[in-house]
Amino acid sequence: MKSKYAVGLWAFESPGDRFVLDSYREGQALDDVIQIISKAEKISGVELIYPSSFFDDLPMAKEKLSQAGLSLVMIGADVTCKREWANGALSSVDEGIRKKAVKVFHETMDVAAVLDCPCVNLWLGQDGYDYIFQVDYSKSWTRLLKSVGEIVRHRNDVKISIEYKQKEPRTHTFIATVEKALYIVQKVGADNLGATIDVGHALNAYENVAESASLLLSEGKLFHMHFNDNYRLWDDDMIVGTVHFWEYIELIYYLKRAGYDGYLSLDIFPYREDPLSAVIESIEQLELFSGIVDRIGLPKFEELLSQKDIAKVFGFLRKQIFI
Amino acid sequence: MKSKYAVGLWAFESPGDRFVLDSYREGQALDDVIQIISKAEKISGVELIYPSSFFDDLPMAKEKLSQAGLSLVMIGADVTCKREWANGALSSVDEGIRKKAVKVFHETMDVAAVLDCPCVNLWLGQDGYDYIFQVDYSKSWTRLLKSVGEIVRHRNDVKISIEYKQKEPRTHTFIATVEKALYIVQKVGADNLGATIDVGHALNAYENVAESASLLLSEGKLFHMHFNDNYRLWDDDMIVGTVHFWEYIELIYYLKRAGYDGYLSLDIFPYREDPLSAVIESIEQLELFSGIVDRIGLPKFEELLSQKDIAKVFGFLRKQIFI
Amino acid sequence: MKSKYAVGLWAFESPGDRFVLDSYREGQALDDVIQIISKAEKISGVELIYPSSFFDDLPMAKEKLSQAGLSLVMIGADVTCKREWANGALSSVDEGIRKKAVKVFHETMDVAAVLDCPCVNLWLGQDGYDYIFQVDYSKSWTRLLKSVGEIVRHRNDVKISIEYKQKEPRTHTFIATVEKALYIVQKVGADNLGATIDVGHALNAYENVAESASLLLSEGKLFHMHFNDNYRLWDDDMIVGTVHFWEYIELIYYLKRAGYDGYLSLDIFPYREDPLSAVIESIEQLELFSGIVDRIGLPKFEELLSQKDIAKVFGFLRKQIFI
Amino acid sequence: MKSKYAVGLWAFESPGDRFVLDSYREGQALDDVIQIISKAEKISGVELIYPSSFFDDLPMAKEKLSQAGLSLVMIGADVTCKREWANGALSSVDEGIRKKAVKVFHETMDVAAVLDCPCVNLWLGQDGYDYIFQVDYSKSWTRLLKSVGEIVRHRNDVKISIEYKQKEPRTHTFIATVEKALYIVQKVGADNLGATIDVGHALNAYENVAESASLLLSEGKLFHMHFNDNYRLWDDDMIVGTVHFWEYIELIYYLKRAGYDGYLSLDIFPYREDPLSAVIESIEQLELFSGIVDRIGLPKFEELLSQKDIAKVFGFLRKQIFI
Repeated sequence: MKSKYAVGLWAFESPGDRFVLDSYREGQALDDVIQIISKAEKISGVELIYPSSFFDDLPMAKEKLSQAGLSLVMIGADVTCKREWANGALSSVDEGIRKKAVKVFHETMDVAAVLDCPCVNLWLGQDGYDYIFQVDYSKSWTRLLKSVGEIVRHRNDVKISIEYKQKEPRTHTFIATVEKALYIVQKVGADNLGATIDVGHALNAYENVAESASLLLSEGKLFHMHFNDNYRLWDDDMIVGTVHFWEYIELIYYLKRAGYDGYLSLDIFPYREDPLSAVIESIEQLELFSGIVDRIGLPKFEELLSQKDIAKVFGFLRKQIFI
Repeated sequence: MKSKYAVGLWAFESPGDRFVLDSYREGQALDDVIQIISKAEKISGVELIYPSSFFDDLPMAKEKLSQAGLSLVMIGADVTCKREWANGALSSVDEGIRKKAVKVFHETMDVAAVLDCPCVNLWLGQDGYDYIFQVDYSKSWTRLLKSVGEIVRHRNDVKISIEYKQKEPRTHTFIATVEKALYIVQKVGADNLGATIDVGHALNAYENVAESASLLLSEGKLFHMHFNDNYRLWDDDMIVGTVHFWEYIELIYYLKRAGYDGYLSLDIFPYREDPLSAVIESIEQLELFSGIVDRIGLPKFEELLSQKDIAKVFGFLRKQIFI
Repeated sequence: MKSKYAVGLWAFESPGDRFVLDSYREGQALDDVIQIISKAEKISGVELIYPSSFFDDLPMAKEKLSQAGLSLVMIGADVTCKREWANGALSSVDEGIRKKAVKVFHETMDVAAVLDCPCVNLWLGQDGYDYIFQVDYSKSWTRLLKSVGEIVRHRNDVKISIEYKQKEPRTHTFIATVEKALYIVQKVGADNLGATIDVGHALNAYENVAESASLLLSEGKLFHMHFNDNYRLWDDDMIVGTVHFWEYIELIYYLKRAGYDGYLSLDIFPYREDPLSAVIESIEQLELFSGIVDRIGLPKFEELLSQKDIAKVFGFLRKQIFI
Repeated sequence: MKSKYAVGLWAFESPGDRFVLDSYREGQALDDVIQIISKAEKISGVELIYPSSFFDDLPMAKEKLSQAGLSLVMIGADVTCKREWANGALSSVDEGIRKKAVKVFHETMDVAAVLDCPCVNLWLGQDGYDYIFQVDYSKSWTRLLKSVGEIVRHRNDVKISIEYKQKEPRTHTFIATVEKALYIVQKVGADNLGATIDVGHALNAYENVAESASLLLSEGKLFHMHFNDNYRLWDDDMIVGTVHFWEYIELIYYLKRAGYDGYLSLDIFPYREDPLSAVIESIEQLELFSGIVDRIGLPKFEELLSQKDIAKVFGFLRKQIFI
């Protein structure tokens, strides 16, 4: 099965950090970015963030994507990147804020439905805490679960996919691990509720990402994949394949074996890099990994997994992969 | 509610590591250790490991504990510390090994029942993997779940408590996080199945231990607590309270608030320390934390948790706690 | 010896991060902040960042500080927080940028001299790299060493203090550890060149901060101390004493023992907190630690360090410290 | 320049850990191991540990190595793996132990000279501490420096190479980073004193290993290289190349560029693996990396290091390396 590739278009926005709030480079207009991506042969899907002025005129938005030949594979509902969410959104003690956050999801789902986008991403950057004694855990989760329930029941023709992350921007996030995401998915219990794995978030939580994917796949709940790379200790959001290698091969193998037919989508932050160049190289790396898995073949991998001498497994793979 | 303290008696055994296999000091005979602990005023419970020659004569074992005035609060069934388990026990691909491991648990449960010990600890040090491409994740979990099911159904008058740990002795362990433990507890689904939190394992997984406890408590599944300390990046199994402080206070608060009436039990590894001295100081630290929570009182903590200025929360606590 | 406290006034600025570039709260005008700090009884010093409009009129700047009764204990020369430094400042391959960065230091030293500020902080957030194969290490260090040499020789009546940090904003920073800072100090070799320890940076590098301080003190090169707290894995820049405790006590002991007479200065980032409240609590924590060390006394600590039973050391300290 | 490979023969010993002190498999007799290695075509050097009965009859030891066609490239002087060193060796407060540890080095140097072994490895697993307030840092370093001085002055025809490591078996080791090793090398100041980089120790200290090597090379002090792999957070001592990839390529490039003509030597711990299989695969991985660097060529790498678009650098390398 051929892999399909998408890219989160925020890679082309103006990126900054706490030291350089004014950004490391100018962002590009979304319309221009769509044109640029439309010319990238291997990319057939995009991800966007709601709210955005792009969605002000939905028929025009649809037309733009259609003319560019791009599928909108995911919209991320943003309840993280504004000051109003600073102390939490879906778990907020402030009922007004909590309701407002739920409404952002409802609107995003409605927009997604109009634009034939199958899925809305739920990542909660601010729902967590920084300090010991800062929140009441069980009360916070009760509110969070209630909110997720209110979201998924809004309409069942759009999927909601929970993306877990251990930390940042808070020092601790409520939905920190793949199992916590699955716990919430099962606790809320809805067909249209599943989870997104971001490779970098998994690495940062000392998860083996293929194992994390396998867990969600075994429960039928892997809805989406975000790719990037890092040095394990922080969500560096680097170009795919510039730090790790074997982890990706194993992951792609497990995805193909389970018949995962979703997109392999990029979530990278090229602070100091040319974003197009970073995107293209990331896709080429994914193509490399996907090609390696296809060439070796699923049956051969299954055989390797029953091989007891791990040195021989790597010996075999080494000879198949490198010039 | 007064806290009850127990100690895992392996603290008095002969400890080594991969560089000093011959051990850092001589261990003490179990009978002697029981005598020593019987004189430690604040300790009323002990934990033991099965198999052990101590259990060869169960009536005598019962008598020894009774004379020492000590409750046997937990028996850890060991399927980690022998060469035969090197590649996994409850998830082993070798059906003979898997069955043998299940049998160790059955025997431990039977012994526990005779000795009025309410609970058997399930920690799986070898069930995991070191290398990418070393195991088939979903097949391994299927076997693991099957084994846990076979264990809990052996008898329902003894509880089984799963202790999670991210790594060591394998680089990756299948039951790595509090949520993974809870996942297995819920997947197997038995009244007598719950989970143990080891404070050091939680710290090592970048969990906030009070939050982890709160999760299990909210599901009625916190069966046991192991205490020790570390520098977050490894399971150093140090004397309680020698690295962290606030985490313990918060944890004890959540335990008391939920009416947790189990033991606070020690799982420490005093490689180079006098074990009795290390045990006594660990218990004194726990008494300190428990006393602080009692003195401040649960209602006051609840009030603090709704205080929005976290600096003021710490200011209040600081004044209450330090001379 | 009584401890002296200072605060880096950027704690009162408008803080953001890569997700909330528009900031979590409004910053306060520097003149107002100086007034606020002047009323904080225990704080007698401040740190500022150059360039800043505050330095446009130096006589007035001097007057403002004087009227507020505050010493300017350090000026941080900023070659990190603007886009132009994105790929490095003092190690830049672009000779124009490198020279411009050196000039920022020269100007800062001149301003410091006018304002009776004894020391300029040298922290290089961008001098490092994100990717493997991104920079030529030895050539980069050669340029970095050359730049530091050019800086310290500008004038010898103002000290330059190198603040090391392992990562952020780059994934890898050239001056990452206390020993790397000392290496550069010794390689350049100037009386007015030393190093700053930021407690959080030390924790993040798995250093024991008292040991790091001891190393610089033994070489006569500990010029300044920055205080904050974190969970070891990132430079969270939290309120002092909200995560760690014993590390601070040990650090303060080593500082007092060596007769360190510099300021204990705050470098915190209260994103979602009231900055004054965060500053005050941090100072109170430092006062607590300082008071504990004074009360126990240096001779007693020396005695404890020769005590072989570490459990007894903590037992003694526990009884001295907690109510 | 062709790479030369060696192997630390402890890979074939009986490996255990704190849970399986009785070992995961039987070790092999050293004489047999030498025979086995003599047949491994690509391996021309070995490392051994002193003391060992192998050195009881030095003429015979020389003869065995000679007949096997193997060079003894390094002897590791062991002052870690016995109970007597538990609280430190070269930094011990016990002058008797300190002197005894120095004597182990003197003996090892004498043995090395007889066996034409150019270098003795100095790794201090126990010289450090576990707890805050456990040692007096400056006094410990003074003793450590004195000991190293006494060692290097014993004879100048054998080199001493300091291998740093951040932790294990202690939670904190005195010689933790590449810069700390270099600090001691420079402080003691002897031509025959340099440092060993263990790739896994560098990864564990969040060092980029090519940068660490570059630092020692620039000071003429890189005496030896140990290879293995890990997941960054612990010294897992795994088969080379099973976790990381690009780091090795960059490292080998910097070694070749500097004309490093030492051995690439293995320091792996195959707990559950066939040791020969693990050794052979590690060597094949090193050959792969070395071959890649040779094929691309040093001038091309130099060109890549001045390329500003890092995505293009990885794109170029990707096409050169993978089938």
